[in-house]
Amino acid sequence: MNGAESLVKTLVASGVEVCFTNPGTSEMHFVAALDKVDGMRAILGLFEGVVTGAADGYGRMAEKPAATLLHTGPGLANGLANLHNARRASTPIVNIVGDHATYHAQYDAPLESDIKGFADPVSGWIHSSTNAKTVASDGARAVAASMEGEGQIATLILPADTAWLEADQAAAPLDSVGLSAVNGEAIDRVAKLLANGKKTAILIRGTALKEEGLREAGRIAAKSGARLMCDTFTPRIQRGAGRVLVDRLPYFAEQAEDDLKGTEQLILVGAKPPVSFFAYPDKASWLSPKDCDITYLAHPHEDGTAALAALAEAIGAPAEPINVAPYEKPDMPTGPLDQFTIGQVIGHLLPDNAIITDEAATSSLGPAIATATAAPHDHLSLTGGAIGMGLPVATGAAVAAPDRKVVCLHGDGGAMYTVQSLWTQARENLDVTTVIFANHSYAILNVELARVGAIDPGPKALSSLDLHNPEINWTQLGQSMGVNAMRAETTEEFAKCFAACMNEKGPHLIEAII
Amino acid sequence: MNGAESLVKTLVASGVEVCFTNPGTSEMHFVAALDKVDGMRAILGLFEGVVTGAADGYGRMAEKPAATLLHTGPGLANGLANLHNARRASTPIVNIVGDHATYHAQYDAPLESDIKGFADPVSGWIHSSTNAKTVASDGARAVAASMEGEGQIATLILPADTAWLEADQAAAPLDSVGLSAVNGEAIDRVAKLLANGKKTAILIRGTALKEEGLREAGRIAAKSGARLMCDTFTPRIQRGAGRVLVDRLPYFAEQAEDDLKGTEQLILVGAKPPVSFFAYPDKASWLSPKDCDITYLAHPHEDGTAALAALAEAIGAPAEPINVAPYEKPDMPTGPLDQFTIGQVIGHLLPDNAIITDEAATSSLGPAIATATAAPHDHLSLTGGAIGMGLPVATGAAVAAPDRKVVCLHGDGGAMYTVQSLWTQARENLDVTTVIFANHSYAILNVELARVGAIDPGPKALSSLDLHNPEINWTQLGQSMGVNAMRAETTEEFAKCFAACMNEKGPHLIEAII
Repeated sequence: MNGAESLVKTLVASGVEVCFTNPGTSEMHFVAALDKVDGMRAILGLFEGVVTGAADGYGRMAEKPAATLLHTGPGLANGLANLHNARRASTPIVNIVGDHATYHAQYDAPLESDIKGFADPVSGWIHSSTNAKTVASDGARAVAASMEGEGQIATLILPADTAWLEADQAAAPLDSVGLSAVNGEAIDRVAKLLANGKKTAILIRGTALKEEGLREAGRIAAKSGARLMCDTFTPRIQRGAGRVLVDRLPYFAEQAEDDLKGTEQLILVGAKPPVSFFAYPDKASWLSPKDCDITYLAHPHEDGTAALAALAEAIGAPAEPINVAPYEKPDMPTGPLDQFTIGQVIGHLLPDNAIITDEAATSSLGPAIATATAAPHDHLSLTGGAIGMGLPVATGAAVAAPDRKVVCLHGDGGAMYTVQSLWTQARENLDVTTVIFANHSYAILNVELARVGAIDPGPKALSSLDLHNPEINWTQLGQSMGVNAMRAETTEEFAKCFAACMNEKGPHLIEAII
Repeated sequence: MNGAESLVKTLVASGVEVCFTNPGTSEMHFVAALDKVDGMRAILGLFEGVVTGAADGYGRMAEKPAATLLHTGPGLANGLANLHNARRASTPIVNIVGDHATYHAQYDAPLESDIKGFADPVSGWIHSSTNAKTVASDGARAVAASMEGEGQIATLILPADTAWLEADQAAAPLDSVGLSAVNGEAIDRVAKLLANGKKTAILIRGTALKEEGLREAGRIAAKSGARLMCDTFTPRIQRGAGRVLVDRLPYFAEQAEDDLKGTEQLILVGAKPPVSFFAYPDKASWLSPKDCDITYLAHPHEDGTAALAALAEAIGAPAEPINVAPYEKPDMPTGPLDQFTIGQVIGHLLPDNAIITDEAATSSLGPAIATATAAPHDHLSLTGGAIGMGLPVATGAAVAAPDRKVVCLHGDGGAMYTVQSLWTQARENLDVTTVIFANHSYAILNVELARVGAIDPGPKALSSLDLHNPEINWTQLGQSMGVNAMRAETTEEFAKCFAACMNEKGPHLIEAII
């Protein structure tokens, strides 16, 4: 067996079942090894941002890493923006980045580049293999590293000769550290704080935003009256009927500051203190009130769900949580097609246990309101602000959860960054329905232009934010890549299209003209 | 005036006329400044790889930098692959990368990342501005840095507050070093070598591959009998009727090694010793014969054209060069549509002074043969091996040379990486005709799979290199972004389409089914 086969065997033995690939010459032995070893599904993306974004979506849902296969420094570079998002989502990912043969690096051939340099800003673990006989053990270490704490990105650089030379054997899986146990002192301290009568908010992030953690938080709220909150952008939150409702922090700094006004103590569970997404002249970056006490119940690498459960017990919380969302589907709407009517249609028709990926930007409020009491679902958002995650994350989520409907809500501007995702959805016949909010604009930037104080914008500035010239035909674009794409200009048309998509498996796209 | 205005004014004063943009919130003041200052054209790209690739194409043709405007670390990251190509092309580019306000960095907001880390592998010069009052001088230094030697990438990181706070004035342009003068000792040494009767090749790269340098090389060849060569992938070479012909080094290592066999001395003009693009088991990385003497007439940062002229004088070369390409257009072909018949159509119909950007990969040989004696043209190739340069480089070249026809030759696999370029071509009504060689395959990888010794590839491996499922409809894809796109399945159809494209200005795409 060669190094590549020893590595693929090791990855499979370590629980890695899927490899999202965009290979080149240096990765051909790894590609060939995918057939020689059973148990690894290979899914091709036509651009590396698709590959890494899909690995992010997969990891968020599967709670274990997919591998990526990327071609040297530039291939990794094309995937970095979605790796940035994945880093902010604490998603476990194992990147396999092919490199020139070890002895070839000295020649500075055209593709030679500083791969470690590219990888460093997004990776929690980086290693470049030096020998075919150690590649397997490097792979086992990479998988374990990816599962450390809440999850992180492990990048294994694989020089071509370490893939093609003879290896001895696969490596046994390594234990990984995972989330750390509850900190008893923190439980005691926060239990006391909850009894001090101060106005309290609990800000939650990470796996504690799944049903189980939310139930514990709802029990704590029932006993203490604390407000439950989550960040504007969370890697994954379980929402809808039967789930404890939490308040999502508003996006704009001044609204968030206003929302937090009067909060006397803030308890953090896997979250960091709220700060504004961007800085603005004369607006705050730090959003909590100046005199608000901030306490960590659980740091991001600690088990937030267990911490909430322990806290609930410590304060003698009742068995049943409060703020449980009822099952109240919005009525089917009438009126002009906009983010609110679209949201109502989605909320009305969403099947049980769907997954929503959300990069709808200025159009995400409508669907968020309408789905709060819709059928239970998972919601995945843009954690790192790097545009172009919605389509690939939907792609990877659909691979991780083949029996669940995936609904991808996307602004038209953002969807262009990784539009090649549609081809992979078609190729793998993934059950993803993409809704493109076609406002032909970087609408968020029209808002931001004024907010940063750029008064009286001229024609060049306005033109830089306007996508009307030419208007992208999303129906044609989706169809060109094999996706069943359709156009909706009225609420009735959208409702008809979306109902059809919910009733039929496979990739669909609706161009919603708003 | 604020910092952004002082910067735009400085860039304009320093000769930067075009800014390829994909801005976000942190860049809004720079965007607004584009209207407040005269002289900077703003061209929007819907993905950063389009922006940086266009800046590469612009810089190769204009021989001065365009600016890019990129949104924080992830925006830069999306542009890195084409910056890698630009680095290998020694193209002058000034990246303006917006960043959070200086005081906001401490909060680790979602978009915070190691921008310098991302920039370092591709940049010859990096600076992060610290103060609105020094931004102008930072901009002047960035432009000068980009023009150093043969040209390089200068990355200026612009924290939002240094853009929005008050500045004093623009900065005056700085002199840049440019190409260094001829090294007299090297001229004397090489002049002697050319008289020693050894079998000699002269390998040329950089600006010496333009008409003037080639003429001098042709004079030297006339006197000395030396063989004239260029790399497989050159940033820019002037070819066609009236230009001195040079032998392009073959791509595959064993063919290149064979081609160089018997060469006793190799003279380098702006080039490096030839090495194989990839390493392969049991194949050479170093391609020159082991006993070949290698001598630098001009290093990459030295003026190769002047060095060739001085050498021609030193050896008493005749006034007229040899190996001047005649004007012999290929006949219009008949027979099945393939890279050779396509090449003949292009060679027959190519107008004077066209620009060809070439990422046709396995389909580039046919056009290269057919255009060698066609109308004179510039040829831009994939210098760094990072797939997805052809469309954006064509875009930027068309901006730099609005009166010249640009023909972009592209494999279908590679064209997907930066397909958003088509939208910018439509928006700016650029005179680019794209020919997609639609073989529905990563054809080069099918070749490489065998060459690296991956024998008996299985279905997963073969599937990873095959793009038939689903077949991309390039005609629809081009039309969806506003480009006049058409499909050709026969040589006659292709000839008709290509003739129409040559007769009409504006963006066109021909999907050539091969």
